[in-house]
Amino acid sequence: MAHFPETPGMTGVLRPLRLEGDILDVEVEGEIPSQLNGTFHRVHPDAQFPPRFEDDQFFNGDGMISLFRFRGGKVDFRQRYAQTDKWKVEHTAGKALFGAYRNPLTDDESVQGMIRGTANTNVMVHGGKLYAMKEDSPCLIMDPLTLETKGYSDFGGKIKSQTFGAHGKIDPVTGNFCNLGYASTGLLTTDCSYFEIDPAGNLLFETEFQVPYYCMMHDYGLTENYALFHIVPSTSNWDRLKAGLPHFGFDTTLPVWLGALPRGPGVTNKDMRWFKAPKTIFASHVMNAFEDGSKLHFDTPQAENNSFPFFPDIHGAPFDAVAARPYLHRWTVDLGSNSETFAGVEKLTDWIDEFPRVDERYVGQPYRHGWALVMDPEMPMDFLRGRASGFKMNRIGHFDHATGKQDSWWAGSEAIIQEPCFVPRTPDAPEGDGYILALVDNLITNYSDLVILDALRLEEGPVARIKLPIRLRSGLHGNWADESKLALAA
Amino acid sequence: MAHFPETPGMTGVLRPLRLEGDILDVEVEGEIPSQLNGTFHRVHPDAQFPPRFEDDQFFNGDGMISLFRFRGGKVDFRQRYAQTDKWKVEHTAGKALFGAYRNPLTDDESVQGMIRGTANTNVMVHGGKLYAMKEDSPCLIMDPLTLETKGYSDFGGKIKSQTFGAHGKIDPVTGNFCNLGYASTGLLTTDCSYFEIDPAGNLLFETEFQVPYYCMMHDYGLTENYALFHIVPSTSNWDRLKAGLPHFGFDTTLPVWLGALPRGPGVTNKDMRWFKAPKTIFASHVMNAFEDGSKLHFDTPQAENNSFPFFPDIHGAPFDAVAARPYLHRWTVDLGSNSETFAGVEKLTDWIDEFPRVDERYVGQPYRHGWALVMDPEMPMDFLRGRASGFKMNRIGHFDHATGKQDSWWAGSEAIIQEPCFVPRTPDAPEGDGYILALVDNLITNYSDLVILDALRLEEGPVARIKLPIRLRSGLHGNWADESKLALAA
Repeated sequence: MAHFPETPGMTGVLRPLRLEGDILDVEVEGEIPSQLNGTFHRVHPDAQFPPRFEDDQFFNGDGMISLFRFRGGKVDFRQRYAQTDKWKVEHTAGKALFGAYRNPLTDDESVQGMIRGTANTNVMVHGGKLYAMKEDSPCLIMDPLTLETKGYSDFGGKIKSQTFGAHGKIDPVTGNFCNLGYASTGLLTTDCSYFEIDPAGNLLFETEFQVPYYCMMHDYGLTENYALFHIVPSTSNWDRLKAGLPHFGFDTTLPVWLGALPRGPGVTNKDMRWFKAPKTIFASHVMNAFEDGSKLHFDTPQAENNSFPFFPDIHGAPFDAVAARPYLHRWTVDLGSNSETFAGVEKLTDWIDEFPRVDERYVGQPYRHGWALVMDPEMPMDFLRGRASGFKMNRIGHFDHATGKQDSWWAGSEAIIQEPCFVPRTPDAPEGDGYILALVDNLITNYSDLVILDALRLEEGPVARIKLPIRLRSGLHGNWADESKLALAA
Repeated sequence: MAHFPETPGMTGVLRPLRLEGDILDVEVEGEIPSQLNGTFHRVHPDAQFPPRFEDDQFFNGDGMISLFRFRGGKVDFRQRYAQTDKWKVEHTAGKALFGAYRNPLTDDESVQGMIRGTANTNVMVHGGKLYAMKEDSPCLIMDPLTLETKGYSDFGGKIKSQTFGAHGKIDPVTGNFCNLGYASTGLLTTDCSYFEIDPAGNLLFETEFQVPYYCMMHDYGLTENYALFHIVPSTSNWDRLKAGLPHFGFDTTLPVWLGALPRGPGVTNKDMRWFKAPKTIFASHVMNAFEDGSKLHFDTPQAENNSFPFFPDIHGAPFDAVAARPYLHRWTVDLGSNSETFAGVEKLTDWIDEFPRVDERYVGQPYRHGWALVMDPEMPMDFLRGRASGFKMNRIGHFDHATGKQDSWWAGSEAIIQEPCFVPRTPDAPEGDGYILALVDNLITNYSDLVILDALRLEEGPVARIKLPIRLRSGLHGNWADESKLALAA
């Protein structure tokens, strides 16, 4: 019998959903722009069965994929579990067998050695296939339309990395899928890989490299010629796992680094150049990165201290909700200089913001427009424990890096917003000319609307709301694929 | 694009759901009694596509079947559309083709002559098959576990009635499925049929009969030897349909009748005996009926006037929300007397009540226990237009006809309750010893719980809540089938 713990991570806004289903031709308020033809996939963690431990971590839930299929002004909704090896063996058992988040020492004996991945962090279409990603495990391949799971891929047996990062990026210049794997030879190791995969699913090259210390490498930066890795001390070790502590803990005594690795075959760890940050800060997601002569710019929401209360300070310092607030910053390193430190850190906004996005046609390129979720300044960064009463990530902000103008849309006091996603109006529209898709969850009515906003006119409010009769659980990441990208799926 | 009208019948508590899906091992609060092994099916109207007319009637929606599958203390949830002929042709077209409720004059030309049924009123397992019923059309057969639609049945080509009533009953003595068809030879006709079907699906006999005038024969009474038909003036005619009025209108100038038809082969219309009620009242559902010597008792919630505001007075009288309140009454007719009128009408309660149920092992038999939904006396009978602010069908009442004792459970001010269903504790438990299942919809959070109450200890509150992460749309009827009744499904 499914008794879920009555913890903040399993109740209120984080109540499990666990619903696989379909809604044909979802109710719409307003009009869906006729140019929107394609798919919006997003994912949330949603434990198939009650967890083995009361204090289970939100990030530990099984990946539940949502698909909004846009065609001719209509939208169909579909939701299915990613049928990972973990999901399958637990499905058969009728109960959870895997234990705590990234701690195999807490698993049932029967699943020792199995891939622990949940495919719950990001979903993206590449070469007509849906890549469902969890950074501690290989890439799960799914059908982008049926959401049928095909299974883990080793890309023709060629990929060495045992892990596949959650923030793979498609290079708009080459069309290749560019990603990293960390702890790539085993849990807690400092071994990493950077690799690129063409649309046919061929591994083009894989560069193995080392990081200064093991840490959560949830995202990275891509420029035309470099992959940039930020090393921030959400770290771990076997002692933590043996002690049953949360996998990650934040160690303010460790430095922060940005590594720049040239992209391409033949590159080795020796080609990596590391730059040290002026102080230890927290950063997770990357809005974009780009080259400017010998300089590399790396835009990331940066906080003065740890932003994750559920991965607490390793030395016991209390969580500082004010220092945890992230603000978009621009980090700059100069390959033309001999310096081993950053060339600059610039704060770009007074908005507390996270879940940054860009017009993906400009990934790795100089760019003008960015978007992110903006938080009410009175609120701590508590998006994974937020309750209806205190949850305020309810604004989408737009950053115009050319003019410095920032404008936004506020979803209302009863709402939270999930990660936005940009869709160009047409394939050749100017940068930023298009739409923002974002799930808006009403915490009173428990309904989710997928709203469509004009990306450069956010303040005008939604041009359409795709109105679900359910509330989707707080999720992580999602992506748009144009109709032309789905053709290969057949 | 699915734009639904912003009418009371399509918003608030009556917002469409349209969700087909599955939840494995639904979250439970409390403990599910281990004896509960079987299925609870229920149905609600839920238009596949926006209706052709703004003022569409709630009863016009496509049947959406919910299944709660109980096994070993766990419950799985499944929901699927009944794939009627109407559903299929509209599914292909991607839009509504059938028009107003029971008015074929409003249909698209392409569907003229097709069966208009929606299978949206009642669902019951008989002989291992799920019968999905709408009283204006034949019986739709579905798989009780997969909810796959098999199609309309004519029971081996034998049944003459073109319609199959929504309140078929399984006679606990014979195990046969006993039902009526009204307007059985065509829309608006006064032709009817009474028939019985054995568990193998064989039509045992069919008695054609006539009623005094065409009316909504939504339910009927069954005793060991008689079928009882109450004729209440929710009536109609072609002029109404041509004028585009609601199908039914209430005509207070017409008398109310109760007809008693002997059950069995060889019976004809001449064997029917009609009894006239002392005055014109409204009655729809039947709690139970039974024999007592030459007397026949017929228990029904009775109102002084029309209870259906959406089927208004035929002469233009305004809806009287007080006179619309139904109270459980016992009608008695005496076959041993020459009288053409009722032998008695007894008011059994001061509770405003509807959706009456019994321990189905006592259908047609003298019985002691009944249950029904009870409404707050301040509220009009507005269950199909209710909004969160005014909706108060939020109590389950128990009637002990032996002692006159009435007790109840109140679900709270934020809740409405859908029709209850009794499940015996064990196959041979005494009458009333068992559980009441009922959906409790929270109108603030928009979650539905299927609650399990001890049927004779309602005031103790739920022994368990099966907690859905969605709210099921207000529904009509549903039934329990014990595991042993499902065996034939294989």
